[in-house]
Amino acid sequence: MAFQHLRHKPPRRLQRPRELLVVCAPMRSNVNLSRIARAASCCGLTRMVCTGPVRLDRKIARDGADAIMVESHRTLPPVLKMLRGEGYQLVGLEQTTHSHDLHQYAFQRKTALVIGNERTGLTGELLEMLDDVVEIPVWGPPHSYNVATATMMAMYEYCRQFPQG
Amino acid sequence: MAFQHLRHKPPRRLQRPRELLVVCAPMRSNVNLSRIARAASCCGLTRMVCTGPVRLDRKIARDGADAIMVESHRTLPPVLKMLRGEGYQLVGLEQTTHSHDLHQYAFQRKTALVIGNERTGLTGELLEMLDDVVEIPVWGPPHSYNVATATMMAMYEYCRQFPQG
Repeated sequence: MAFQHLRHKPPRRLQRPRELLVVCAPMRSNVNLSRIARAASCCGLTRMVCTGPVRLDRKIARDGADAIMVESHRTLPPVLKMLRGEGYQLVGLEQTTHSHDLHQYAFQRKTALVIGNERTGLTGELLEMLDDVVEIPVWGPPHSYNVATATMMAMYEYCRQFPQG
Repeated sequence: MAFQHLRHKPPRRLQRPRELLVVCAPMRSNVNLSRIARAASCCGLTRMVCTGPVRLDRKIARDGADAIMVESHRTLPPVLKMLRGEGYQLVGLEQTTHSHDLHQYAFQRKTALVIGNERTGLTGELLEMLDDVVEIPVWGPPHSYNVATATMMAMYEYCRQFPQG
């Protein structure tokens, strides 16, 4: 069988808008945010909620920087309250007590994936507001995924469960 | 329900060594290689095959740089031949004719995941040597995942299928 490059393959079409939202606590690195923005846009997300100042690096985010609407808020708790009111399931990405293994976790379609800071993760205040927490299994050093890596894996898993949107 | 941080949760134990191998064509960026090395080590991989000079950035790869053995070869075709002789299924990550959707692809346990260059992807010479090609669905701009992002998603999918090794 011959495999031939398909460089300009048209993207898939979602049958309905993605109802996955990425919500980021204050991050140290615009590089991580920009990587998340590119991957999120590739996954068909159109909205990303951030905290504090955000400057996407266009060399990293590419056209994702235009395709995804990045909102910035001063703090997350009021935003999470509002999202819950809109029907979003609030799912944190963290290793905690009662966290679910991402491999087995069944996402709700309308999900806000809440991402913590690179160093400190999700604060206790935010953890208290969540409906669920998912963790990604780790088998080797450094025993933690980079925050953008973990976010991408979680977005991949969500899209696997809802390939049509 | 209260979610409490588990910062020093012990890593999972594999019941058998990982038989997933990441094989990289010559890359432009040691940053991408270093990111792949960190995620690969977290996924329990212990060996990574690269082409050309490699210098892992320890600020990115962290302890993964020690845990994963990085081999460097001048060219990939002889390596792929050897790996096939050792029983590895050679699976490229690319958009090609006859490529399988990663969501539906059933990995063989003994798999060499072959990753192409950031710009040019996998060469025709390498594509001809592969058993299978997998692609990751894309729904939005810039219509292509970063090479490290794509590799991480594929490693995640493999680990999801073989959580015990």
